Amino acid sequence: MAVQVRLNWTENLQFVAGAEKGPAIVMDSKDGGSGPTPMELLLMGIAGCTGIDIVLILQKKRLELSKLEIRISGKQADKYPKRFTEIHIDYFLAGKNISSKAVEQAIKLSEEKYCSALASINAEFTHSYTIEKQKPS
Amino acid sequence: MAVQVRLNWTENLQFVAGAEKGPAIVMDSKDGGSGPTPMELLLMGIAGCTGIDIVLILQKKRLELSKLEIRISGKQADKYPKRFTEIHIDYFLAGKNISSKAVEQAIKLSEEKYCSALASINAEFTHSYTIEKQKPS
Repeated sequence: MAVQVRLNWTENLQFVAGAEKGPAIVMDSKDGGSGPTPMELLLMGIAGCTGIDIVLILQKKRLELSKLEIRISGKQADKYPKRFTEIHIDYFLAGKNISSKAVEQAIKLSEEKYCSALASINAEFTHSYTIEKQKPS
Repeated sequence: MAVQVRLNWTENLQFVAGAEKGPAIVMDSKDGGSGPTPMELLLMGIAGCTGIDIVLILQKKRLELSKLEIRISGKQADKYPKRFTEIHIDYFLAGKNISSKAVEQAIKLSEEKYCSALASINAEFTHSYTIEKQKPS
């Protein structure tokens, strides 16, 4: 299995990136601000990977997820190369019959078994989650 | 130092992601195709990180870079969690007075000293580069 992307430098520290025939995104330095930074993209990849797992696992359990928000934060070492040392993932979910047990199982399965992005990162991971009450319809 | 992003699930396996007040991007599963996949985002982050280093280092050397394209590919393990095992970064550069020596130094400094994204990934890295002839102006 291989994944490939291509980046083209545009100006300053801005790049346009995309997979062959895939949709392109703009990335930039923090100061440039025209797109996510490289380190933000890493966190997005990790959160998106576990997010897809959570959606699929809860669907398989026939639970009706109505909301999934993921907030992820990474601490970097003080010294270069300033790698991520600690990453915290906070899940916010809502839906019919969504139980703590099901959510905990889904997070555990993703983080320990399925999530390729998380498994590719050399950092300490922690997580928390909140099951929100659904608004009455 | 902390980096933070937030993801919101939209439908199917599509998410919208962004930093607080930062530009948002769409990510999706391979089948969905409306945005890069999580594993593509990891590669984009790595390539963007080393790309920014290369631009800054060559600028510091007062070399006039006119083109920087980066192609990055990652091999994943066959078994779950299918983490990246090998990542290859291929640099294509052009510009006035861009020498092999300068490019090799810049890549080495980025990969071994500065690139936070690369240092956060648990995989074997290799690279290659091509200095392209500038079109006559």
